[in-house]
Amino acid sequence: MQKIGLIANTEKSQSVEKLNQVCDWLEMHNYEFCLDENTAELVDRQVNYKFYNSLVEEVDLIIVFGGDGTFLKAARTFVTSDVPILGINLGQLGFLTDIEVDRLEEGLEKLMAGDYTIEERMTLEGRIIREEEVINRVIAINDLVITKGPFSRIIKLDTFVDDEYLATYPGDGLIVACPTGSTAYSLSAGGPIVNPKLNSLIITPICPHTLHSRSIIATEDEEIRVEIDADHSDVMLTVDGQDSFSVKPSDTIKIKKSDLKAKLIKLDDYNFYNILRNRLQRSQF
Amino acid sequence: MQKIGLIANTEKSQSVEKLNQVCDWLEMHNYEFCLDENTAELVDRQVNYKFYNSLVEEVDLIIVFGGDGTFLKAARTFVTSDVPILGINLGQLGFLTDIEVDRLEEGLEKLMAGDYTIEERMTLEGRIIREEEVINRVIAINDLVITKGPFSRIIKLDTFVDDEYLATYPGDGLIVACPTGSTAYSLSAGGPIVNPKLNSLIITPICPHTLHSRSIIATEDEEIRVEIDADHSDVMLTVDGQDSFSVKPSDTIKIKKSDLKAKLIKLDDYNFYNILRNRLQRSQF
Amino acid sequence: MQKIGLIANTEKSQSVEKLNQVCDWLEMHNYEFCLDENTAELVDRQVNYKFYNSLVEEVDLIIVFGGDGTFLKAARTFVTSDVPILGINLGQLGFLTDIEVDRLEEGLEKLMAGDYTIEERMTLEGRIIREEEVINRVIAINDLVITKGPFSRIIKLDTFVDDEYLATYPGDGLIVACPTGSTAYSLSAGGPIVNPKLNSLIITPICPHTLHSRSIIATEDEEIRVEIDADHSDVMLTVDGQDSFSVKPSDTIKIKKSDLKAKLIKLDDYNFYNILRNRLQRSQF
Amino acid sequence: MQKIGLIANTEKSQSVEKLNQVCDWLEMHNYEFCLDENTAELVDRQVNYKFYNSLVEEVDLIIVFGGDGTFLKAARTFVTSDVPILGINLGQLGFLTDIEVDRLEEGLEKLMAGDYTIEERMTLEGRIIREEEVINRVIAINDLVITKGPFSRIIKLDTFVDDEYLATYPGDGLIVACPTGSTAYSLSAGGPIVNPKLNSLIITPICPHTLHSRSIIATEDEEIRVEIDADHSDVMLTVDGQDSFSVKPSDTIKIKKSDLKAKLIKLDDYNFYNILRNRLQRSQF
Repeated sequence: MQKIGLIANTEKSQSVEKLNQVCDWLEMHNYEFCLDENTAELVDRQVNYKFYNSLVEEVDLIIVFGGDGTFLKAARTFVTSDVPILGINLGQLGFLTDIEVDRLEEGLEKLMAGDYTIEERMTLEGRIIREEEVINRVIAINDLVITKGPFSRIIKLDTFVDDEYLATYPGDGLIVACPTGSTAYSLSAGGPIVNPKLNSLIITPICPHTLHSRSIIATEDEEIRVEIDADHSDVMLTVDGQDSFSVKPSDTIKIKKSDLKAKLIKLDDYNFYNILRNRLQRSQF
Repeated sequence: MQKIGLIANTEKSQSVEKLNQVCDWLEMHNYEFCLDENTAELVDRQVNYKFYNSLVEEVDLIIVFGGDGTFLKAARTFVTSDVPILGINLGQLGFLTDIEVDRLEEGLEKLMAGDYTIEERMTLEGRIIREEEVINRVIAINDLVITKGPFSRIIKLDTFVDDEYLATYPGDGLIVACPTGSTAYSLSAGGPIVNPKLNSLIITPICPHTLHSRSIIATEDEEIRVEIDADHSDVMLTVDGQDSFSVKPSDTIKIKKSDLKAKLIKLDDYNFYNILRNRLQRSQF
Repeated sequence: MQKIGLIANTEKSQSVEKLNQVCDWLEMHNYEFCLDENTAELVDRQVNYKFYNSLVEEVDLIIVFGGDGTFLKAARTFVTSDVPILGINLGQLGFLTDIEVDRLEEGLEKLMAGDYTIEERMTLEGRIIREEEVINRVIAINDLVITKGPFSRIIKLDTFVDDEYLATYPGDGLIVACPTGSTAYSLSAGGPIVNPKLNSLIITPICPHTLHSRSIIATEDEEIRVEIDADHSDVMLTVDGQDSFSVKPSDTIKIKKSDLKAKLIKLDDYNFYNILRNRLQRSQF
Repeated sequence: MQKIGLIANTEKSQSVEKLNQVCDWLEMHNYEFCLDENTAELVDRQVNYKFYNSLVEEVDLIIVFGGDGTFLKAARTFVTSDVPILGINLGQLGFLTDIEVDRLEEGLEKLMAGDYTIEERMTLEGRIIREEEVINRVIAINDLVITKGPFSRIIKLDTFVDDEYLATYPGDGLIVACPTGSTAYSLSAGGPIVNPKLNSLIITPICPHTLHSRSIIATEDEEIRVEIDADHSDVMLTVDGQDSFSVKPSDTIKIKKSDLKAKLIKLDDYNFYNILRNRLQRSQF
């Protein structure tokens, strides 16, 4: 009998109702469950709860209520564990969440009947290197983005693949995404949509100040290296659009496939192209 | 006999040599000239100089040494005067500057022989409106850009043309350019190249989080209105990539053609398509 | 009292019902009307009819039932007359037609009450020149498109604006659109959306075999000249996606604003940006 | 001791000189070689020759003189054999050819010293299916392209991935490329550049008449199915831009990874990103 962890985006107004609905359902079916500290404050009953970071020690799988942002944070936090994650979409355009809120009970029934697979998704490891020392090491589920700060105008990023010089991209910055992230910021910047099973590194410049820049897709075994000019004092590395790290002049950023996998629960009727079609149809002018 | 103003980008290493070369030439031909305060420090002789902002009161035309940035600043500063500006390109990809540094004397001779026309370019007026009051009023030669701040993820910009709702652009922001600015940031964001004589407003979203956004070109008589969501606390309005103004939640930004014209000196062999072809050829992968 | 001409796309199944509905309405309100020969066969009563090309001699305005194709053909045929045209949209994505079929009577009432303006739209004149002689002279409402034939691989098109060399576009061909055509093929090929009031020539390469080609927008006073290579034996000039003309090696194609205007009836609530938003929303993945 | 096959693009003026130069070199070094019938007519000496299609039975490796087109034809013809192919670039932008013509001897020395690897490239198999029967089965090195014929306006292609409906693309057609073909027509149509080692299927619509179409990259195990509408009478399937097959209304086209591999000889200093940078730099506006 599996024990369930519950995490909600506490800022979404829908969270309270849906969370209580799921708690009701779990209690009625005699499943044990545990919430993270902040999510616990949303429910109308006494529940087990844990600190966010240690929730994973108590449970066999985690259900996340929110949009892709909430899901990404959980997936990144728990990427070192074996606990898989299922998303219930309270957002607008969830590519990562699997259950639409209007089919909540149906989804829970499938989940509890074991009608799902765990999809292991490639993740990215990024390192900021300063004077030959690794200053930061980060894991990304979607993408690692190098951007100019707010008061710079253009940054020029010397970019290498496995030590072969590729290009210098002048512009707003550079995105390195894994396939899971191909439908996020990379898509906005003009990148292609990549089947999440096709392990690869998608390199896409942001508003390049050259006319002829395109996305380039490297293999999962290649390493991207970006050298920050000694002139550029205002550069950031952002992880999944959520955590930002300051990059200094002459720093080097290295990005490659991480050894870790994100574990996504996909109910048995899941199909990437179906979700894709569905999500894109909802995106309106 | 015309009196010449000289302004240089004091950070370009080439400036000193070229500036002295032009001063020599002007002295030799007995032209009067006057420098701005900072530029005066670069030259190897006693010269007349003025504060940057009041240089325009002394001279009949201004020569600017630098890239498009240096030219834009001068054009914006002196837009209320009738003094036209000529650019000597010390940068890489000058669309605004007219004389390449290796044809300096030839350019000066044409200028002094009167073999030029003054091209009047449309400019933009932007206003930030807060609680029905105009908080800032700015003039742009190239573009007005509304962007999210460094720690936001996505801004949604409700955009109207002459009070008709056009679209809500979710993404990194929105560019409104005039034709002169069509070869600057707007081009990087995917916009078209517009002949500077075709007065118009070019609306281009920056990395829109919808797949189907395109540049839209409005007439010079239309006004663009962008309403900032009450949620968005970290928005900026940037003028020509140089000056930034903070925009607050619920502010409105209005952009229209300004009554002012930038006055660009174009030597007689100038042709927009020739410059365009030339500049684009130099832009390399 | 105005006399009305009626033209329908005789291949649309909806045409019969809607046409009869309009005939009923016109008879009931004692308006005179006249159909073109083929359209007359669709109606269930005795009506006045004329050959398509001479319909315009009999009537004061023409109502077209169909999609943009039907409208384009009529607008092109009658462009030399002063008779304005109103479109009733039986197609999917009409940018040119003005009345949606579900608001037919409302539209007719407005029309007959005179609650409309006649919008004069810029058109294009194209000429195929062979050994200094004009072989074909055509008028386009939307666009003139130069393409390779089905068995060629790539054509290279030397392109000039007002005799200034612009670029050689290698690829599938080149589109020159006027603003009315900016929402047609030009948009599919990556071009911007241009307000129909902004007279201009929109030059967009089709699948260019260079990475850095963009739409270029020339003024209404400029002439585009395309020189066909002596090697290229399989080139076509297509008008509004409807009529094709064979172009021979070493031919020259010249495109400029025509002196003729298309006259579009726009009911008083018409707004370009409203139609645009509406049409784009309906276009689905 | 390896026996060499030689094939040249007989229409390139450079072929004769370079071919004789290589024959000289091979004779001087006592290598045996054999030409295809047509190429043999270009050389100034008596040589062994064979029909094009049976050349492969005589030789251990083939050297091709020409551009990517000449190389593609040879690679496709000999894809069922184990004979690898090396390209000498007489064209403009060779992504497939490996030796630049100005470094011919250097390349031959490396080749004969065995300083090369044989890179096996994924190929595509396409089938046209009519009334449940396979009418044509083709192999492509670069891409399979479904297009409208010259007199159609728009085709709508219902596209499926592994029987999951993906999208209906209205427009000029659809490209399915393998990574080797990502730098060919797919790139012109807006597709990404994919490392040839990353086996995958790149689906890119051609001038789609929807704003929001992007390249989609499927895994090498997926099959693309395109159903031709019963209305569309003028559709073609083109292989590597060279061979075209007529497709009838209601036909189905299936595209998947072929079991065959193209064998490309890559001299030891070959690096995909280096070639890429090099080729893109040469492509000018």
